[in-house]
Amino acid sequence: MNSSLPTTALFTDFYELTMAQGYWKRGMGSQTAVFDYFFRRQPFQGGFSVFAGLDPLLGALEYFHFGQGDLAYLESLGIFEKEFLKYLEGFAFKGSILAAKEGEIVFPHEPLFRVEGDLVQAQIVEGIVLNTLNFQSLVATKSARIWLASAKGSIMEFGLRRAQGADGALSATRAAFIGGAYGSSNSLGGKKFGLPVLGTMAHSWVMSFPSELEAFRAYAEIYPTNAVLLIDTYNTLESGIGNAITVGGELKSKGYSFGVRLDSGDIDYLTREVRRRLDEAGFPEAKIVVSNELDETIIEHLVASGAPIDVWGVGTNLVTGGNEAAFTGVYKLSSISYGASEKSVMKFSDNPEKSTNPGRKILYRLFNGSDNARLDLITLEDEVPEAGKKIIGNHPSGDYRKLSIVPTSVEPLLSKVMENGKRTGPAPNLKESQAYLARRIGSFDATYLRQLNPHVYKVSISDRLRELKLGLIRKYLKKY
Amino acid sequence: MNSSLPTTALFTDFYELTMAQGYWKRGMGSQTAVFDYFFRRQPFQGGFSVFAGLDPLLGALEYFHFGQGDLAYLESLGIFEKEFLKYLEGFAFKGSILAAKEGEIVFPHEPLFRVEGDLVQAQIVEGIVLNTLNFQSLVATKSARIWLASAKGSIMEFGLRRAQGADGALSATRAAFIGGAYGSSNSLGGKKFGLPVLGTMAHSWVMSFPSELEAFRAYAEIYPTNAVLLIDTYNTLESGIGNAITVGGELKSKGYSFGVRLDSGDIDYLTREVRRRLDEAGFPEAKIVVSNELDETIIEHLVASGAPIDVWGVGTNLVTGGNEAAFTGVYKLSSISYGASEKSVMKFSDNPEKSTNPGRKILYRLFNGSDNARLDLITLEDEVPEAGKKIIGNHPSGDYRKLSIVPTSVEPLLSKVMENGKRTGPAPNLKESQAYLARRIGSFDATYLRQLNPHVYKVSISDRLRELKLGLIRKYLKKY
Repeated sequence: MNSSLPTTALFTDFYELTMAQGYWKRGMGSQTAVFDYFFRRQPFQGGFSVFAGLDPLLGALEYFHFGQGDLAYLESLGIFEKEFLKYLEGFAFKGSILAAKEGEIVFPHEPLFRVEGDLVQAQIVEGIVLNTLNFQSLVATKSARIWLASAKGSIMEFGLRRAQGADGALSATRAAFIGGAYGSSNSLGGKKFGLPVLGTMAHSWVMSFPSELEAFRAYAEIYPTNAVLLIDTYNTLESGIGNAITVGGELKSKGYSFGVRLDSGDIDYLTREVRRRLDEAGFPEAKIVVSNELDETIIEHLVASGAPIDVWGVGTNLVTGGNEAAFTGVYKLSSISYGASEKSVMKFSDNPEKSTNPGRKILYRLFNGSDNARLDLITLEDEVPEAGKKIIGNHPSGDYRKLSIVPTSVEPLLSKVMENGKRTGPAPNLKESQAYLARRIGSFDATYLRQLNPHVYKVSISDRLRELKLGLIRKYLKKY
Repeated sequence: MNSSLPTTALFTDFYELTMAQGYWKRGMGSQTAVFDYFFRRQPFQGGFSVFAGLDPLLGALEYFHFGQGDLAYLESLGIFEKEFLKYLEGFAFKGSILAAKEGEIVFPHEPLFRVEGDLVQAQIVEGIVLNTLNFQSLVATKSARIWLASAKGSIMEFGLRRAQGADGALSATRAAFIGGAYGSSNSLGGKKFGLPVLGTMAHSWVMSFPSELEAFRAYAEIYPTNAVLLIDTYNTLESGIGNAITVGGELKSKGYSFGVRLDSGDIDYLTREVRRRLDEAGFPEAKIVVSNELDETIIEHLVASGAPIDVWGVGTNLVTGGNEAAFTGVYKLSSISYGASEKSVMKFSDNPEKSTNPGRKILYRLFNGSDNARLDLITLEDEVPEAGKKIIGNHPSGDYRKLSIVPTSVEPLLSKVMENGKRTGPAPNLKESQAYLARRIGSFDATYLRQLNPHVYKVSISDRLRELKLGLIRKYLKKY
């Protein structure tokens, strides 16, 4: 399986299991429930997010089960009844799922992954759904921001050593690629996901030889094609670049090109000086690779100042999110059935922004002209907004704010990806998801993609969804 | 194995493998190298860090190898020679390791994990060493900060859904426990690490019943011992607390106690009101649990203001670090042998703070009176600072600043944990590591433990280490 996720259903919050036993004891376990995955605010003070993590998540859900060791562990806790543990022994996820595509540009409040299944099943998968989609969407979003900051340049993901655990590295390698990175330093990630693996040399290589020159020469002899020499172990301008040019000349005489990498110091100043030295020495084709705690803000400034950088190695901030380490995705019950009757539900909460949208919902993107996204509309399942007709959108909080649009085209953003616990078809490969994102980025005005203070893209709810929501609110308020 | 880490040696940065082939081709593969793991600055603007991750790391290193599929993958890249791949087929980590204890209080520049092995082996493990120690030390440090902020209160780790991938959740569960959390919501973590698993109920439980009161009553019937009722699904004060008191009364009549949880709203105001209502209704023993994006700053303020909170559920910020998602640990070559001769080496770098300490080093803690840590001293391996004798410490940058101390006791902080690729003995269990940290915290003046602007605990280098470092610097400077 193309995933590093656990397939034991024990990868779940403990309260899911105590609640599951509760539902089971009350005979509620097989009631049909609908849960929505959505997020509450854009990360990184940005204007968009990138949805990712779907394929490995579906892969894990297909195999999600309790092993004998898991059941023995649960029994040892003295909380679960024997009959319930037998029921868990036969547990498998048999639900159906609607989801957005990996690489889709997405916005707060939108239902991106909708699970319909029996209450116990839909509840127990909550942890793995949130864990997987939150993390991969965080990294894919960060990656897209970094890629855009580099003017769609060459981003290498270098994060293994600073990632949050083993899967923090592997899943990040995957999500960073969707977001626009062209390869990774993570060898296992390369194998698992079929992505380009990349790397230059470490300071320890240089320090393992009697001199920097000998270290460069040894490397160039072994790897003459595309040797990228690390020039900052001792002193970039006094030592590294000179030795690199010496070895570069030897490579050139054999018909090979080379490159240099800088990992410290003032990148703006040093890359200009290094570029000048390389050009003067007759190596205009030699590439400059930089690394050292880069993020989208630093990259955007370096690009704006014209620093001559060909390749960006980004580690920590790309694979962890840096100063924002979590995506705010949640998984909330929106509908529950008792026999034939179905009830739409919502959470109110003492924080208004934590209130949810009730009912079986679906998501559309409305375009005004080809490739010009103007509005996303959340509707009830049986509503179909039509191109060429006036559509009213309401503010998602359900208050008085409205807008209207006559879209030239309407695109459903969710499709059925799992039916009765089995996938409906093969997933796109990662190159396709990466290309999909690049196309989708092209359908948004640049003001929505700005790194800081972006224009807020509108997400609305339909009249009927608004009525449903206000009706529930009125009903609950009447109780007081 | 008590770990969720990969044991494939392919979990490494690709350049380690190209460098390894280079060392192997040059006949340098079996030279003895010494690498130090250390970090550069305290995270979270704090004054201390907690070392963690050692036991799972050693477990992974004992089994670290290339599988047939890994080797086939490497062969498919067209970069590696058949003979080298055969060499990798026999690869196993046979090095020796000195390390600090898990739960140790540690400071920048200190060698915390020292690998001595052949150059190829010591190089290839770099990725897993950094990935494991960096992440677990980050979370253990955050956990200790949160635990101290709560006045050594009751911390539940609730992070699975916001953690960075599956291992981001599992390893965080482990590290959070070392740092002071008393249990986790992560069921798989509970099983893997033998830790208490905990949980209350979700909003979806409450929403799955026709009314909040019925939901509470159903839960209390199934789990009468220690039912913790979530009271903010609709409205904490208008609805939740009243229903909880009703059900609490029913529980009390059967001899059971109960508790409530709040997950939104103004925690300070709401917990006071809820406490007042509980006390008035005759439930002074009912516990109040809170959650909702807590971190050490929020907790410290709530404790200072006297909010009546018994248990803290902390998720996102505990398991990811929140606004600081990576520990700055690095793994640097400090010594390399050619046959019988050994050379101490260091990295200079264009950033002075990225310069390293050369040579085979060891680490001592100097006390002044029982349980009163005053100075950590990095020495060369054959130096042994003695209690009762004057010891000179130099600033780690090697500049003119010095201090002297006559310690009442001297404790070595590193011990041999692996010899020829095998552990020297069993690791402490997690409860022991947690207790060890609690004791060690007691040996530092409170000013070092302050959340913000802490007093800086001094880490010095010995005279002889300073001489070695300055000698290397002089030698390199002479070249220009």
